[in-house]
Amino acid sequence: MNILCVAAHPDDIEILCAGTLIRYVNEGHQVTMAVFTSGNMGDAVIDPEKLGRIREEESRAAAALIGAKLIWGNVMDEHVFPDREQRRLMIDILREADPDIIFTHSPSDYHPDHRYVGQLVFDAYFQKGLPHIPDQRLPACRFGHAQVYFMDNLGGIGFQPTEYVDISAVFETKKKMLACHKSQFEAMQQLASTDLFEMIEVQARFRGMAAGCRYAEGFTRLDAFQRGLTKRVLP
Amino acid sequence: MNILCVAAHPDDIEILCAGTLIRYVNEGHQVTMAVFTSGNMGDAVIDPEKLGRIREEESRAAAALIGAKLIWGNVMDEHVFPDREQRRLMIDILREADPDIIFTHSPSDYHPDHRYVGQLVFDAYFQKGLPHIPDQRLPACRFGHAQVYFMDNLGGIGFQPTEYVDISAVFETKKKMLACHKSQFEAMQQLASTDLFEMIEVQARFRGMAAGCRYAEGFTRLDAFQRGLTKRVLP
Amino acid sequence: MNILCVAAHPDDIEILCAGTLIRYVNEGHQVTMAVFTSGNMGDAVIDPEKLGRIREEESRAAAALIGAKLIWGNVMDEHVFPDREQRRLMIDILREADPDIIFTHSPSDYHPDHRYVGQLVFDAYFQKGLPHIPDQRLPACRFGHAQVYFMDNLGGIGFQPTEYVDISAVFETKKKMLACHKSQFEAMQQLASTDLFEMIEVQARFRGMAAGCRYAEGFTRLDAFQRGLTKRVLP
Amino acid sequence: MNILCVAAHPDDIEILCAGTLIRYVNEGHQVTMAVFTSGNMGDAVIDPEKLGRIREEESRAAAALIGAKLIWGNVMDEHVFPDREQRRLMIDILREADPDIIFTHSPSDYHPDHRYVGQLVFDAYFQKGLPHIPDQRLPACRFGHAQVYFMDNLGGIGFQPTEYVDISAVFETKKKMLACHKSQFEAMQQLASTDLFEMIEVQARFRGMAAGCRYAEGFTRLDAFQRGLTKRVLP
Amino acid sequence: MNILCVAAHPDDIEILCAGTLIRYVNEGHQVTMAVFTSGNMGDAVIDPEKLGRIREEESRAAAALIGAKLIWGNVMDEHVFPDREQRRLMIDILREADPDIIFTHSPSDYHPDHRYVGQLVFDAYFQKGLPHIPDQRLPACRFGHAQVYFMDNLGGIGFQPTEYVDISAVFETKKKMLACHKSQFEAMQQLASTDLFEMIEVQARFRGMAAGCRYAEGFTRLDAFQRGLTKRVLP
Amino acid sequence: MNILCVAAHPDDIEILCAGTLIRYVNEGHQVTMAVFTSGNMGDAVIDPEKLGRIREEESRAAAALIGAKLIWGNVMDEHVFPDREQRRLMIDILREADPDIIFTHSPSDYHPDHRYVGQLVFDAYFQKGLPHIPDQRLPACRFGHAQVYFMDNLGGIGFQPTEYVDISAVFETKKKMLACHKSQFEAMQQLASTDLFEMIEVQARFRGMAAGCRYAEGFTRLDAFQRGLTKRVLP
Repeated sequence: MNILCVAAHPDDIEILCAGTLIRYVNEGHQVTMAVFTSGNMGDAVIDPEKLGRIREEESRAAAALIGAKLIWGNVMDEHVFPDREQRRLMIDILREADPDIIFTHSPSDYHPDHRYVGQLVFDAYFQKGLPHIPDQRLPACRFGHAQVYFMDNLGGIGFQPTEYVDISAVFETKKKMLACHKSQFEAMQQLASTDLFEMIEVQARFRGMAAGCRYAEGFTRLDAFQRGLTKRVLP
Repeated sequence: MNILCVAAHPDDIEILCAGTLIRYVNEGHQVTMAVFTSGNMGDAVIDPEKLGRIREEESRAAAALIGAKLIWGNVMDEHVFPDREQRRLMIDILREADPDIIFTHSPSDYHPDHRYVGQLVFDAYFQKGLPHIPDQRLPACRFGHAQVYFMDNLGGIGFQPTEYVDISAVFETKKKMLACHKSQFEAMQQLASTDLFEMIEVQARFRGMAAGCRYAEGFTRLDAFQRGLTKRVLP
Repeated sequence: MNILCVAAHPDDIEILCAGTLIRYVNEGHQVTMAVFTSGNMGDAVIDPEKLGRIREEESRAAAALIGAKLIWGNVMDEHVFPDREQRRLMIDILREADPDIIFTHSPSDYHPDHRYVGQLVFDAYFQKGLPHIPDQRLPACRFGHAQVYFMDNLGGIGFQPTEYVDISAVFETKKKMLACHKSQFEAMQQLASTDLFEMIEVQARFRGMAAGCRYAEGFTRLDAFQRGLTKRVLP
Repeated sequence: MNILCVAAHPDDIEILCAGTLIRYVNEGHQVTMAVFTSGNMGDAVIDPEKLGRIREEESRAAAALIGAKLIWGNVMDEHVFPDREQRRLMIDILREADPDIIFTHSPSDYHPDHRYVGQLVFDAYFQKGLPHIPDQRLPACRFGHAQVYFMDNLGGIGFQPTEYVDISAVFETKKKMLACHKSQFEAMQQLASTDLFEMIEVQARFRGMAAGCRYAEGFTRLDAFQRGLTKRVLP
Repeated sequence: MNILCVAAHPDDIEILCAGTLIRYVNEGHQVTMAVFTSGNMGDAVIDPEKLGRIREEESRAAAALIGAKLIWGNVMDEHVFPDREQRRLMIDILREADPDIIFTHSPSDYHPDHRYVGQLVFDAYFQKGLPHIPDQRLPACRFGHAQVYFMDNLGGIGFQPTEYVDISAVFETKKKMLACHKSQFEAMQQLASTDLFEMIEVQARFRGMAAGCRYAEGFTRLDAFQRGLTKRVLP
Repeated sequence: MNILCVAAHPDDIEILCAGTLIRYVNEGHQVTMAVFTSGNMGDAVIDPEKLGRIREEESRAAAALIGAKLIWGNVMDEHVFPDREQRRLMIDILREADPDIIFTHSPSDYHPDHRYVGQLVFDAYFQKGLPHIPDQRLPACRFGHAQVYFMDNLGGIGFQPTEYVDISAVFETKKKMLACHKSQFEAMQQLASTDLFEMIEVQARFRGMAAGCRYAEGFTRLDAFQRGLTKRVLP
């Protein structure tokens, strides 16, 4: 399968979805990590242009670690809007990955970039498969078909997972991916008093405690007409 | 009364609301069908410009069948946005119909065009009656007053009707209206494996089963301040 | 139509539903007021047995004012339980009234007696029409058919009406019905610092403000399979 | 795996879950059908005692058709209560089946027997695995472990499936199982104007339309601590 | 503390939040009232440009009454959009006030300007504290930290307060603030049959009745990651 | 103030609320811990009668550690029911503590004993202050007045805190209280693969991460009419 994760900022994928992506890689699937913005506002001192380049390098290193493909959206950080221009960009991202499964931010998360990336994925879903959409860089990929899952919210606020993925066996690799984002450790500590490694440890342990395993990532599924919902015998 | 139904694509009204509109016509009310986009992306082969013209003809035929007025919004299919330009268009659509009752898409439906048309109706509600809104084509109509109902979602996903309209006696006419949209039968079958006639049969039967009649269409009411909510003795 | 309102305590009907009942009376329908408990705990001083008799008299006076029939359940105040014994009593109340429309407490109201009366109505709905239920006082009435509406919560806490009934023209009569419950004015003031007349004034004005009239009572409909839901053309 | 479906009345399993059970049988799992009441009130004329015997025979025939085990709870129809006595019975039913997966009624369904059976399953879940619960007929089975799924509501009212099972290939067998319940065809037609075969056809088609297959049954999962929730890679 | 209230139109703050603001003033905090639009469409006859100037004067008078600072956004009435331009304006409003507490409209209120102002506050929250956001008039203020509360909806429709503020002692001052908005008394009466003074009286009494005091204003808290949520011992 | 926490089993208070209780003790308030059942089913081997005595000793030790009063309900473990008998017991527990603030289990928690204890508190609230309730051991305490808060669910499943209490400074004492429940460490490990100390560490860290402190306990408030809701200036 083609697995696509679309997140707003460099390191969001590592924080919320990397364990699950590693499991797909281990099972032989093709994984694409799409980072919509350059994360170039994420430091109080470093110049945005310079920071954007640093963070792209960090994201490429994290993706390389597991052999995932990286799509770099390069939208200006803190400037995601569900408008025509960014819809077009999102359609091309979906077309490039031609996904069977899409992970993205929940529309109830805390950061506007997160929320609007999730909305753009929902909105671009149909157009990825329609051949006559004007002004797109890439031709249409498969129509419909893909299933969409929303990643957990930061701190779990306003999010109740309905799906859990056991990432106990790959949690160390998830931490290594996060460790590629060196530019953020000090910035997040100073700006938001947040220790990123402790944050993913606590959240993955809490979701694991709910599911009944050591570490887990939590998700919900976007259910809508013609989204190719699962129909397997349970569970 | 003036009854207005605003939908995103040609054939949406026929699928989700036609039975109810026929009942209004039969009771002597004035019915207006407003189609916001031209539906010109709805085929994998036919050229959008040509398809737009075909679908306008099909919509006009369906409206003519029951003596309803048609407003053709002509926005490009798959390109509905709740922005300034489309807000203006929606205000003029509401002004042209000067409705007592408005039907439109639910904000939780599967297609972005559906969701944003519903949002635009909610957003344009007040401006339809304010005389000083600049750059409108038409003068203000009555202020407030109209009641807004959301139509069912496709497949019923994420929608729980609170109002049901018995359309058993007019279901054959609803099918005839849908039959005007010839361009879509093959396209929907190829693109989305969907038989439109079976789709309306199953959905109307399921909603009828819930309500206790043969065929029904389901709705919810948009409740908000100064929306002229009903105050009748129940039921 | 046969209209039935089942409430937990004497004066609950007057507070939450009397305006609507008066409108039914005025339109020629048969109205039954069922009070499930005797309200005999509703005073810090007066002996329960004596208070129960006083409150029955007060309820009979209020019902007589509008020509409604009164059913006196006589369950001990503060002791409503959704158990076998009270289920049986509720089935007989429903059978005695053979209602087309039932009003009762919402399952989210503040008082356990309110919540369990609402639950008992929901639970007894089917058995009212089944002839073989053992140990009932009365034979089965019509099966299914009746529509159930939940009355507003006190203070509106946890309740969002979806139906409003305009009671502006009958609000004075509603106050007269409440005025029959003399035993409660001082008790509610002392026990709960509540002025009952001000309470119904404020709640009916607030719901009226939402609906767009002077005074209104608010309701929601209990939707469930085979509840004979309305299927009229809207609104 | 041991699969258990606990329903309130004979024919409930056939209507809401049989397609899914057949798929388990076809995959080699052990399926147990538990009917909590005897359904002995389900006819306006036939004597309850006699009807109870007829319905047990019908249920046994339906279970035999697919080689499932039948547990006959024999509680009086219309008399399910979440009390001590029926809790004990439910604990023994769960112990007898020692299930890996449990299907039961949703707590929001229309019939009190349905709702209370679902509540009893939720309530008895822990006690099935605790050895010291007094007055049980059977010794404790495995602690925790089982996953619980709620079946669809009748008419879909108040129920939004999050899981769909494709039953297209086994729908004919589901109909044959329903056909064993001969006593109900005329009774449901007379009492509730319901054609049972049309009812399952419409509901399975509607859920299938949502999921993207011909026939489906819809479910939600009961998520709670120590319920052994799934942790697989999605979907 | 720095207290900021951001509302869509002149008089919204007075209607929904003034009592609470007065209490802050009385306790010695710095209060800023930000009015996002000029309210210049709020009359069927008066020219918008002229009306905008009148309403600014009225707002300044109301703010002066309690010694609050006024920020005049001057966006065209009925034209609030969550786009890039208005995001920038909102960021500067937040930076100017550098708030510890922010009050704004709920995203479920009836008027699009209300809903989008609430959304803009949610969206601009992070950018207020990030130094590199381009094209801002003001430098970054403190990062994060502020708590956000949503004000009640008009008529309470779709809003359930979880926080109540007792404004009994300052209700007269609230009325005086509203009295500054002379231009609206007749306009609201003619356009929407609304008596503004009666409206605030009824809503504050209803919320007070729920909370257990004479007059109250109701709020909910916006909970999201890194919003500096309260952690005090309750209540 | 009088602070009361009512939980189902010995150790529930320590797991979900002890940090908050310690803070009240430190501020000079009177704290009462009420344990509704004896927890006597909580071991696969030890005889229930013996285990009940052990667990009472453990609970008394934990309460003594912070100088809290202990009420021992002594209901049989796994046998909580919201019936007449246990309602009477709960009324007396409330009367004995005469609380200003009550903490109890959320009605959505995983264990039936938890859910029914929460329901019993909600249901017994009014009767605690009514003098004529028959068959009570204790006379009525103050009417109404107390505020009720629901404790977090285990694993956070189905619970979104709206109130957080910072327990960082008292977390070590919370652990010491939990350490009194020696009988449970091995039992929970064997029966449910749960390490209790790790469980409270992870849950308190996760809630702290959401709130913005090291360790927190999360709560929601039960809002209902005449519950004496807070009316303070925010936050």
